[in-house]
Amino acid sequence: MSSFAIGIDIGGTNTKFGIVNREGTILVQDSMLTNHDDDINTYIENLYEHLLPLINKQGGIANIAGIGVGAPNGNYYTGTIEYAANLSWQGIVPFAKLASEKFGLPVQLTNDANAAAMGEMIYGCAKDMEDFIMITLGTGVGSGIVINGQIVLGHDGFAGELGHTIIRHNGRMHKGTGIRGSLESYASATGVAETAIKMLAENPQTDSLLRQINDEKLLTSKVVYEAAMQGDAIAKKIFEYTGDILGEALANFVMFSSPEAIVLFGGLTKAGNLLLAPAQKAMEAHLVQCFKNKVKILFSELPEADAAILGASALVWKKE
Amino acid sequence: MSSFAIGIDIGGTNTKFGIVNREGTILVQDSMLTNHDDDINTYIENLYEHLLPLINKQGGIANIAGIGVGAPNGNYYTGTIEYAANLSWQGIVPFAKLASEKFGLPVQLTNDANAAAMGEMIYGCAKDMEDFIMITLGTGVGSGIVINGQIVLGHDGFAGELGHTIIRHNGRMHKGTGIRGSLESYASATGVAETAIKMLAENPQTDSLLRQINDEKLLTSKVVYEAAMQGDAIAKKIFEYTGDILGEALANFVMFSSPEAIVLFGGLTKAGNLLLAPAQKAMEAHLVQCFKNKVKILFSELPEADAAILGASALVWKKE
Repeated sequence: MSSFAIGIDIGGTNTKFGIVNREGTILVQDSMLTNHDDDINTYIENLYEHLLPLINKQGGIANIAGIGVGAPNGNYYTGTIEYAANLSWQGIVPFAKLASEKFGLPVQLTNDANAAAMGEMIYGCAKDMEDFIMITLGTGVGSGIVINGQIVLGHDGFAGELGHTIIRHNGRMHKGTGIRGSLESYASATGVAETAIKMLAENPQTDSLLRQINDEKLLTSKVVYEAAMQGDAIAKKIFEYTGDILGEALANFVMFSSPEAIVLFGGLTKAGNLLLAPAQKAMEAHLVQCFKNKVKILFSELPEADAAILGASALVWKKE
Repeated sequence: MSSFAIGIDIGGTNTKFGIVNREGTILVQDSMLTNHDDDINTYIENLYEHLLPLINKQGGIANIAGIGVGAPNGNYYTGTIEYAANLSWQGIVPFAKLASEKFGLPVQLTNDANAAAMGEMIYGCAKDMEDFIMITLGTGVGSGIVINGQIVLGHDGFAGELGHTIIRHNGRMHKGTGIRGSLESYASATGVAETAIKMLAENPQTDSLLRQINDEKLLTSKVVYEAAMQGDAIAKKIFEYTGDILGEALANFVMFSSPEAIVLFGGLTKAGNLLLAPAQKAMEAHLVQCFKNKVKILFSELPEADAAILGASALVWKKE
């Protein structure tokens, strides 16, 4: 029984990787640019060169049980990355196969949100849960759904795209998908910034710290959070609005799979109770009786910098 | 290995029951009133008296593998029926335990929509599927979700209440739950009737066969269907509106669990393509790329009169 797992998180900008023990401690880690080269073979070579010294530091390849990879549009069934918008590799990339051949190790791959859910299940706040839903509230909204202790993959490996579910009929246009009213259009960092612009325009009489920002691009969810913490009325209203929509969506998810908890993760969760209080209230208001006052909404306790590597590495232990 | 299973379907008015073989043929069946007596023990006695002659006809109790029960608010984990609005038994009824003691047979119980999904999986059009969603479009909207070949029950046994998910924010009030905008408020027989009243009022200039109905209570989904089949413009518009909302909801369900198919069942499906065409169109329009043109929408092929008994009996074989 090998002691360590490699976790690799492929992001649009950086690829982070590390070697993790069974207790969920990252022993060594490093990162490299993802899109430094458009050729996947060069990328794999690069990755190998970066990882080899770390592997040797942990006693060599014999100590490694396998590699787990979290990637946008990663498909667990096929081990491929398919048409990922933020990656420069074209079409369908047989990532698991290529990495497995290069490293001589078994490679499991899934999408980044599923990897995050695995991390919560193996190391995090969902450790003893068989049924939970993980929602990542970052630039976009991702999700990993666990039912009966298993990640829900669906018949084709693409299940769990809760950020794209419609929560406002004919609502805000999602630039990436061209579809109106999806959760991601509202409950992401991008969505919060858009709400800020909208609310400032709709309330021209109301004073706000946010009006000091001259460039719309600088009106980020972080700036809105800081203003709200200083008591800014519009900033607080922005999080209320976002939490309200998020909570209504959570109610829908609860009535689908009746999870024990919903685990929230990602940049937006820094807003804490500003987001949680309205989300909780809206969720309960939209649940029918048998679900009320049962489902916990938790914030992930995994350190954000490590969670992606931990989640990816968890794939290795889950497979054993 | 016993050859037969008993299937019992407890409805608000009638309880239907039958003895089913492994191929899904109902060999004998009968029914009785459900709410004839408020006392659950009397009900069980009654059920036993009705079933005993059927059991004896099939060679006695030794030939029966077990009993499967579908009931509103039935909980698979506990075998109880909990606070069912349409049944006269109060509170939490330990139905499986009482029936098992009386019959001397193992009893499995679940809610009626889950039983219907089991029926499709064991005998029906979802026979070879590991991942599908069954939606029953009757007086209300029920659902049974199958993932990895298992009914999704959730952490407490109440999963799969898709009829109560919100599809129109601040939409139509649901009289039973007091919540606005749920799928059931639109895509049920009750919802279609309400849409009919609304559309007739909103289009006073448009002639319609439906205007000949003087009593709103007689303006049922069946009447609307018959008018639509005669080319009535408003009646057709009612189904378009209903199908459009249903399809948008189906897209949300698909992006949750990525099923191979959605199986529709119940009275409203008699509308056939009048409902299916707009539903399919709206579903595809709201799906992000990776789900498009993949998910089949099927109508159940099980005879409606038998499906509830078959579904309940399927619980017995699934448990073996």
